[in-house]
Amino acid sequence: MMQGAVVLTISCPDRTGLVAGVTSYLAVQGLFIDETHQFGDPETGRFFMRTVFHPSEGQWNDEAFAAGFAPIAQRFECTWDARPLARRPRAIVMVSKYDHCLVDLIYRVRTGGLPMNIAAVISNDTALKKLVEAEGIPFIHQPVDPACKADAEAVMFDALERERAEFVILARYMQILTPEACQRLAGRCINIHHSFLPGFRGANPYAQAHARGVKLIGATAHYVSEELDDGPIIEQLVERVDHAATVTDMIHLGEDLEALALARAVKAHIERRVFVNGSKTVVLR
Amino acid sequence: MMQGAVVLTISCPDRTGLVAGVTSYLAVQGLFIDETHQFGDPETGRFFMRTVFHPSEGQWNDEAFAAGFAPIAQRFECTWDARPLARRPRAIVMVSKYDHCLVDLIYRVRTGGLPMNIAAVISNDTALKKLVEAEGIPFIHQPVDPACKADAEAVMFDALERERAEFVILARYMQILTPEACQRLAGRCINIHHSFLPGFRGANPYAQAHARGVKLIGATAHYVSEELDDGPIIEQLVERVDHAATVTDMIHLGEDLEALALARAVKAHIERRVFVNGSKTVVLR
Amino acid sequence: MMQGAVVLTISCPDRTGLVAGVTSYLAVQGLFIDETHQFGDPETGRFFMRTVFHPSEGQWNDEAFAAGFAPIAQRFECTWDARPLARRPRAIVMVSKYDHCLVDLIYRVRTGGLPMNIAAVISNDTALKKLVEAEGIPFIHQPVDPACKADAEAVMFDALERERAEFVILARYMQILTPEACQRLAGRCINIHHSFLPGFRGANPYAQAHARGVKLIGATAHYVSEELDDGPIIEQLVERVDHAATVTDMIHLGEDLEALALARAVKAHIERRVFVNGSKTVVLR
Amino acid sequence: MMQGAVVLTISCPDRTGLVAGVTSYLAVQGLFIDETHQFGDPETGRFFMRTVFHPSEGQWNDEAFAAGFAPIAQRFECTWDARPLARRPRAIVMVSKYDHCLVDLIYRVRTGGLPMNIAAVISNDTALKKLVEAEGIPFIHQPVDPACKADAEAVMFDALERERAEFVILARYMQILTPEACQRLAGRCINIHHSFLPGFRGANPYAQAHARGVKLIGATAHYVSEELDDGPIIEQLVERVDHAATVTDMIHLGEDLEALALARAVKAHIERRVFVNGSKTVVLR
Repeated sequence: MMQGAVVLTISCPDRTGLVAGVTSYLAVQGLFIDETHQFGDPETGRFFMRTVFHPSEGQWNDEAFAAGFAPIAQRFECTWDARPLARRPRAIVMVSKYDHCLVDLIYRVRTGGLPMNIAAVISNDTALKKLVEAEGIPFIHQPVDPACKADAEAVMFDALERERAEFVILARYMQILTPEACQRLAGRCINIHHSFLPGFRGANPYAQAHARGVKLIGATAHYVSEELDDGPIIEQLVERVDHAATVTDMIHLGEDLEALALARAVKAHIERRVFVNGSKTVVLR
Repeated sequence: MMQGAVVLTISCPDRTGLVAGVTSYLAVQGLFIDETHQFGDPETGRFFMRTVFHPSEGQWNDEAFAAGFAPIAQRFECTWDARPLARRPRAIVMVSKYDHCLVDLIYRVRTGGLPMNIAAVISNDTALKKLVEAEGIPFIHQPVDPACKADAEAVMFDALERERAEFVILARYMQILTPEACQRLAGRCINIHHSFLPGFRGANPYAQAHARGVKLIGATAHYVSEELDDGPIIEQLVERVDHAATVTDMIHLGEDLEALALARAVKAHIERRVFVNGSKTVVLR
Repeated sequence: MMQGAVVLTISCPDRTGLVAGVTSYLAVQGLFIDETHQFGDPETGRFFMRTVFHPSEGQWNDEAFAAGFAPIAQRFECTWDARPLARRPRAIVMVSKYDHCLVDLIYRVRTGGLPMNIAAVISNDTALKKLVEAEGIPFIHQPVDPACKADAEAVMFDALERERAEFVILARYMQILTPEACQRLAGRCINIHHSFLPGFRGANPYAQAHARGVKLIGATAHYVSEELDDGPIIEQLVERVDHAATVTDMIHLGEDLEALALARAVKAHIERRVFVNGSKTVVLR
Repeated sequence: MMQGAVVLTISCPDRTGLVAGVTSYLAVQGLFIDETHQFGDPETGRFFMRTVFHPSEGQWNDEAFAAGFAPIAQRFECTWDARPLARRPRAIVMVSKYDHCLVDLIYRVRTGGLPMNIAAVISNDTALKKLVEAEGIPFIHQPVDPACKADAEAVMFDALERERAEFVILARYMQILTPEACQRLAGRCINIHHSFLPGFRGANPYAQAHARGVKLIGATAHYVSEELDDGPIIEQLVERVDHAATVTDMIHLGEDLEALALARAVKAHIERRVFVNGSKTVVLR
């Protein structure tokens, strides 16, 4: 990717002339297109487009682009966003006791594999406090009382705002968000579920998988929705197991799948490749 | 595999001295062990063992082995079977209209990839009659009246007996067997379901997969049981799909998975690697 | 894919305004874009684009489009092609004795999985004559004398022209083409090699794989080039093996990989997704 | 796995009565077999066996078992080893600048995924000193002068002896060991090479892979041998890439493969599943 590249994402009703309208504007502005991918869903009639272009040195200006692009966006009824790829988004990570996904995320952020910042980690447990603070990341301990979950969630929403964070990662967070929180976080809250959905929703999926005798176990990264483990799927991975695998073996093997599926989903999200399309996603490569 | 190799399979309650008891008997008889695999399930307390050995030239005799092995079998309360690997088992294949699994099975039987014989093909449709008869395989057209399925199934059981066939393959057979038939065929009737079970049981799994927006589709080969799509799983395969895949794309892609998963399950079955262990299987490699 | 869809492919030097120039022309003509994918290679400076669009009913005309598109093509120095997806290309398939890839191709052509026609099968052996003719496909037996390979190749080139075939598939053809033939067929002759290239080039790759003790075997579909097993790779697949796998086991397992890798490469080729980019390919999804 | 389980591994010339001889001894001693796997290689005539059994509580004694088993071992000319699975082996890890494999190993050791201890980390660089010492692991900085590698290797052999470490892990160690060191470490020094061997041996395999245009990249964990990147392979993994993947993308993607392939090879090694069989391995599951 060129230094200074900008990513433009568009979602709108599909119609003739869309790609031409958008790319012609870029051409007129002298913006060189590195890559463009688009998808028109014949079922929903929605059009999704991701374009990476680069301006001449020093040329990029959010307001100037927005002003110039406004007529195009209005003409095609677009929801759109344009931002330099180098601008790292900020995330709040929610965890409980398990550290494998968190450790993996932190490593990838540190080494550049995930170009983002972890603004804070919030947990209903203190088990991971030391690990998080050793990385210089603020750790917020917020117990969750089932009777008043909204109070705990208020802490998360406060942190999102205060830290100017854009999205939330549930890195094996063992609490279910309220429907209200799910709605407010639609399309910007990524959960990792430790099964190959829609198989084994809910609690203890590896125990369920072991009881059913499946020959492959999986992990699913998805945006949360009001319905538990039913949100738009971003990424899924599987691994082979056999009759000798105990629940504990599956848990260990699954940790690798969970961390990797979550990391890939987060990477696609921050590279702005993922679009919510009803109850599904479009992931443009 | 040595020419003349014999496969011995054992299932019994687990206890100390089992492997020694069995292998000592083989050693005393001068039978050279090519491979042995065993598994003791700590949950069910059952022990499963598969041994391939070869006798000296011309030495094998079913009755002689059975007589000699009887005391061992009795001592350990074994269900057991011993047979030359070269003795090809016979199968009845049930189909409806789709031919991809059947064509694949026939090809593998012809080229030796599946060392078995197809004794007959039974179908509730005539679509595949010509294809089957061109291979010199008897084709039995048996329509299925939902009101009296047992009559149609009687034809299948008659064919099994008449053809001295040992097992049944449901190669995308679009009918549900009666509970009675499932019971009679326990552990010897392999079905291919076109999803990654337990996800998308029942009808039109690819349409279900498309609606859910999964990123991997799958196929599952399993022994039939009274509960639909819930029998012991033998093999599962998956393939990656993306948002652009239509139901038709998934169906085409899935055909490869179905044929391959079924072929591998059948191969494991006829090589006598598969043991039913409650609602699950043990597959000894 | 819409009935009546047309696929436009473009290859040219990369520059600003390309996507806009092409899509604007389509928009002005009232052509609705179904999908567009492009790739600009920063190393070679080449730009590759594949667009699927559909005209209004009855509107498509090769000559009219060519005339209208000529100025665009000239301006951007494009190599280009536009054709209805429903227009099935014709292929010559070359084989020797092994039938698994050929049987697979024929099945996919018959069932629509591969929207193409097999114009003729040419072989240096007669082993597959009966199989081919039973499908109503012309079979040409052309022995290959190492001393005068060009004569045998002349038969292939004659068949290509006579049958108006566009490309050649080497479906486990056990002969090496002359450098001259490779050059003439550049980018339109797909070979399947039974290893994961660049490992195990040349003869008996499964024996090589067995001797080396690899834990995965593979198959590679590629365009032929003058250098043996070194042409631009289109598709690769692998499968797990273990220490117990004999060369024969690998050959059997590999047949599935070879047939599938070849089928996927041929499908991508006839859907016009594959572009030769120096010694590599660009495969636009 | 039962608490207190013992793993017995045997390697010897294959012959009739071997499995019986060994398992009968265990039976007579009242040792309950959890699992047994064996493999006889018809090419080398070697037999390999891995048995996990558990003694009655408190019963295990190395010397007593050795004394009792000696006649069996002598009779069958066995190389053998028996040890409690709970006895964690100690390893020396060699690194240079890259930390992804080391970080992964440390995490798995800490969480129990790899039941072993890292006795020390030796590096020709100081880049990872802080990371290692923060874990409480001794870090030895030993620069390598190409003219006298043996001196640096002496430090490694000293550390092995002093720390009573059994094996060595080259976790992306960027130095080539001398032939003498490779010989002394035969079967107990695991290297991770960042390609799918035998493709892309030597330096910069991702750059080689990018230049060749492969569609899958890989990683190979193997025992080192005198011939570079040619030792017995333990584990291999691959991941899909496309034309758009840069060398940097491949390096990032490859890090996951390398860490996972190495971790699986080390796990198999410390569970004593891996046997060297000439230039190959037998890995008993």
